[in-house]
Amino acid sequence: MPYHMRRSEKEITEWTAIEEIIRKGKYLTLSLARDNEPYGVALNYGYARDERALYFHCAPDGLKSEFIRRNNTACASIIEDNGYQLGLCEHKYRSVVMRGKIEIVQTDDAKIHGLEVMLDHLEDNPDIKKQTMPSEAELYKVAIWKMTIDECSGKQMINV
Amino acid sequence: MPYHMRRSEKEITEWTAIEEIIRKGKYLTLSLARDNEPYGVALNYGYARDERALYFHCAPDGLKSEFIRRNNTACASIIEDNGYQLGLCEHKYRSVVMRGKIEIVQTDDAKIHGLEVMLDHLEDNPDIKKQTMPSEAELYKVAIWKMTIDECSGKQMINV
Repeated sequence: MPYHMRRSEKEITEWTAIEEIIRKGKYLTLSLARDNEPYGVALNYGYARDERALYFHCAPDGLKSEFIRRNNTACASIIEDNGYQLGLCEHKYRSVVMRGKIEIVQTDDAKIHGLEVMLDHLEDNPDIKKQTMPSEAELYKVAIWKMTIDECSGKQMINV
Repeated sequence: MPYHMRRSEKEITEWTAIEEIIRKGKYLTLSLARDNEPYGVALNYGYARDERALYFHCAPDGLKSEFIRRNNTACASIIEDNGYQLGLCEHKYRSVVMRGKIEIVQTDDAKIHGLEVMLDHLEDNPDIKKQTMPSEAELYKVAIWKMTIDECSGKQMINV
């Protein structure tokens, strides 16, 4: 995030480095657009490597859902914030920006899979899954989104 | 950022609390839309209280500028990340989402003012201003944006 004239950002070209940022991150900012109106919201996520996809949990009746139903193209950005560098006019960071389409997960099995991906990503204790997973009877209330990653790029500050 | 069924988010209603998050933050994610395509990018910012505005520095020839020239409506989100709470399926945070229009700052005086707002916000040493401020001859290369805040809301996680 440079804000003066030096060019101190660099593209991250190695997929392993990009994937490390995605794996380590706990939340991202999702940018959406409805009738050309932008909207950005922070969400926890789970990364499903084999599917090259991200999963989110979302209230089915909120503003995010309204946007997605109108336009399911999304842009997700993850920031690894390594701190503003006082006196240097620099912010030390790595970032990943992803573009793709979001689909609303439909079946109970797919919802459970999405929640498992999230818990595997976010939590470190396998018991949490058993305690947290909703019952079959509750699943109708759970809204899960899947964002398939079509494009992905990484950047980092290199001078600090 | 809840990802299960408990309702543990709460609107922040006090302007002083919202402003504290804006003042403390060093960067935000700016969501833009061009022909209904969303784009999100992280940027350092400066907050100008008297103008109810944010200032950014930006390369004049980048993708962000292309988006802004086509559609200057923007949504900015600041996250105060207080950490994922392992075992609780919760992320401790406060957030502010702002909507407004971005204008590209035109005059040299307004560019200098925008840079001063950013340095006042981001840095703690007044000498940095003198060292960093571009000369008059360099100002034509500097692109500064001003986002006037039309709407602003705050949220926080209250269970943790």
